[in-house]
Amino acid sequence: MSYDNDDWDDDWDDDDSETGTSNLNGAGNFGLSAPNRSVKPTSSVGDVSSAGAGKASVDEKEKVFVDETANGPRWRPNPHEFTCAISSPKKESKFHGMKSFIAYTVMPSFSSTSVSRRYKHFDWIQARLSEKFPLIPIPPLPEKQISGRFEEDLIEYRMTMLQSWIDRICRHPVVAQCEVFHHFVTCPNDEKLWKTGKRKAENDKLVGANFYLAIERSDQPLDMIQTEAKLEGYTRFFSNMDEAVKLLQNTCLDQAKKHQTAYKREYNKVSHAFSKLSRAFDTDPSNCAPGLTEAIHHVSEAYADIGTVFEEEPKHDWDPLCNLLFEYKGLIDGFPSVISVTKGAIAKRRQVEKEASEGRLDYDQVPPMIKRSDTVAYALHAEVAHFHDERTRDFKKAMTSFLTEQINFYQKVTDRLREALQKFNDV
Amino acid sequence: MSYDNDDWDDDWDDDDSETGTSNLNGAGNFGLSAPNRSVKPTSSVGDVSSAGAGKASVDEKEKVFVDETANGPRWRPNPHEFTCAISSPKKESKFHGMKSFIAYTVMPSFSSTSVSRRYKHFDWIQARLSEKFPLIPIPPLPEKQISGRFEEDLIEYRMTMLQSWIDRICRHPVVAQCEVFHHFVTCPNDEKLWKTGKRKAENDKLVGANFYLAIERSDQPLDMIQTEAKLEGYTRFFSNMDEAVKLLQNTCLDQAKKHQTAYKREYNKVSHAFSKLSRAFDTDPSNCAPGLTEAIHHVSEAYADIGTVFEEEPKHDWDPLCNLLFEYKGLIDGFPSVISVTKGAIAKRRQVEKEASEGRLDYDQVPPMIKRSDTVAYALHAEVAHFHDERTRDFKKAMTSFLTEQINFYQKVTDRLREALQKFNDV
Repeated sequence: MSYDNDDWDDDWDDDDSETGTSNLNGAGNFGLSAPNRSVKPTSSVGDVSSAGAGKASVDEKEKVFVDETANGPRWRPNPHEFTCAISSPKKESKFHGMKSFIAYTVMPSFSSTSVSRRYKHFDWIQARLSEKFPLIPIPPLPEKQISGRFEEDLIEYRMTMLQSWIDRICRHPVVAQCEVFHHFVTCPNDEKLWKTGKRKAENDKLVGANFYLAIERSDQPLDMIQTEAKLEGYTRFFSNMDEAVKLLQNTCLDQAKKHQTAYKREYNKVSHAFSKLSRAFDTDPSNCAPGLTEAIHHVSEAYADIGTVFEEEPKHDWDPLCNLLFEYKGLIDGFPSVISVTKGAIAKRRQVEKEASEGRLDYDQVPPMIKRSDTVAYALHAEVAHFHDERTRDFKKAMTSFLTEQINFYQKVTDRLREALQKFNDV
Repeated sequence: MSYDNDDWDDDWDDDDSETGTSNLNGAGNFGLSAPNRSVKPTSSVGDVSSAGAGKASVDEKEKVFVDETANGPRWRPNPHEFTCAISSPKKESKFHGMKSFIAYTVMPSFSSTSVSRRYKHFDWIQARLSEKFPLIPIPPLPEKQISGRFEEDLIEYRMTMLQSWIDRICRHPVVAQCEVFHHFVTCPNDEKLWKTGKRKAENDKLVGANFYLAIERSDQPLDMIQTEAKLEGYTRFFSNMDEAVKLLQNTCLDQAKKHQTAYKREYNKVSHAFSKLSRAFDTDPSNCAPGLTEAIHHVSEAYADIGTVFEEEPKHDWDPLCNLLFEYKGLIDGFPSVISVTKGAIAKRRQVEKEASEGRLDYDQVPPMIKRSDTVAYALHAEVAHFHDERTRDFKKAMTSFLTEQINFYQKVTDRLREALQKFNDV
């Protein structure tokens, strides 16, 4: 893949919208060119087993550790955990306002300097990380365009999702420590410095199939039958997760839409019916019990307000849950290929063992292959364990927040009705 | 109208269902025959103005008073107010179980003896009262068959509605005091006594157009222009009420149905989606965080329970409101004809006045006609005032109860969600 198209005025500006009105000047695009995603990295994910030891040297700081714990293999925790805050989305432009884009402020917790990044920079780092870590599913970015959202909503939504995305990367014990990610979160808004880091990342030898060379793990060989059974378990689990997440995501979308349309409409219908009753009462020429007429009018208003409460509810509960599920859908989508890479390594190892036992291959070639397939399996076990940690953390938080908001929501409805009921005490 | 078809085994048994299984014996039908409703009473409602004074003598106890109050003409309150409790619907049968019917126990508050009445007896008294009081809309009975209800529900529903009906009659200062109604609520389950009271009611001279003869009111003549303006106001008001009540009734029916079908289904869908997520979590081979899996399962159960709360809600709020609106629909339906009787009396009076002024009629005939049309107008004013009293009382009570139940309902939902949220504290 080539990133030579480094000129500042490149055409990869598909998150820009043309505008002739603004004269603002701001951050450029740091010379990012559109990666050609149909071209695979030279050492593709599939042939991880054939990547040779010693083809790339591994610096101490580039090493990645899988520790053996009471709960099985785990990525070694990041000794320098950090977070990144994304804030202040600003509409900026270049070419004297011909092109406009949104720049976000990214502030790592270990730094005192914030940097400015555009969606396309996120897109670039996402692609780099996906390329570098074939054994680690990198969550996809939020979708570029969400139909039906107003611009401010879209910017707000995208920032929330980018924050969630970068939080997830920061929490990953391996990914958060890699150089290219640090480059992304720290490189000042300076074209030269950006290009230097970019070129360095492009020259990284430990990407794709070579990544396993950086993995340090226990010398304990893995039982192959047990490993294969585990892989089957992973496959089943992620397949179930995929279906469940898709269903719940659709349910969220469906409920969010219904709250804003059908349910709101129903409460408006109820409101209208009470309003009509109160207006009929109001035409009593003797004007008997005007307080009752007024109180029923308040009931009508209460149900209209409840309609609005319904309309505004999804952003508090269904939308955030849906956003998490979007992230999980992306994460889960990454596992089948990671599992299949591991299966491929095991198949290759079986083949080498078979050929050696049949005398068609030198026995010396067997141990490196075993080591290689075990390393890949260790990495997968560690990554699945990390996924479960994330899942437990995320869903506990998401469900707690969802239910709390649902409770607030129904409480709001109850409170509004209580207020309406109060009026009848004075009748 | 003839009620001679008094034989115990009459065929007017359309509230009976044939059954060959029951051998119960019980109250008969007191020899009620089907009134032929297409036959109008001899002195029809429309020609009240032409009913002559002195054609029927009025006993002191049959007199009906319209008092002049600060708020205009009112029926004199019933000095012997009472209530009637309807209870213990019992399935009984006759012809050795060939016909079965429901008998209700009716217990007036002034009596120590309860009586047994069937739906057809209610139907009979409703017809008698409608016939006797052309200037007072008598609420219709609950419908005989409500499609889709189970038998127990139907019996329960009908009893509730009959109770509400008899309560309304008891609250009416004029209707509650009439002899035929007392006969209905007190006559023991004895065929002979029943027939005696029935014949007496049938021989009542003060029915229909003659009822106005029983009305005693202020000698103050009414301003005709003002009266006509009031009638227009009544017409507009009842027309508005009619539309509003119909709309709210349809809204109640619609909401009740949606709670039991669409809304319940939505909560079940949400429940299903969470259930699927919890089952997917359950297939994690490492069984990490089983408490979370369990808690999400509880969320699924909570939403299924909420679906049931929705399904069972209408009987607490929408159904009772709908029942009241059914009664009001019936009451309101009665007013246009009462208003038109009054308009007819005024038109007749204008005609007589005109003919007298043109010398085509003796002036002596004018004052009785004025007196007659004023009496009818006094009665209408009193009846409309009574309607407003009832409306204020009924809707204050109904709305208070409706809102209280709605609050309980949303509170139940909130409580159930709180319970589900609690489970996440232990994860």
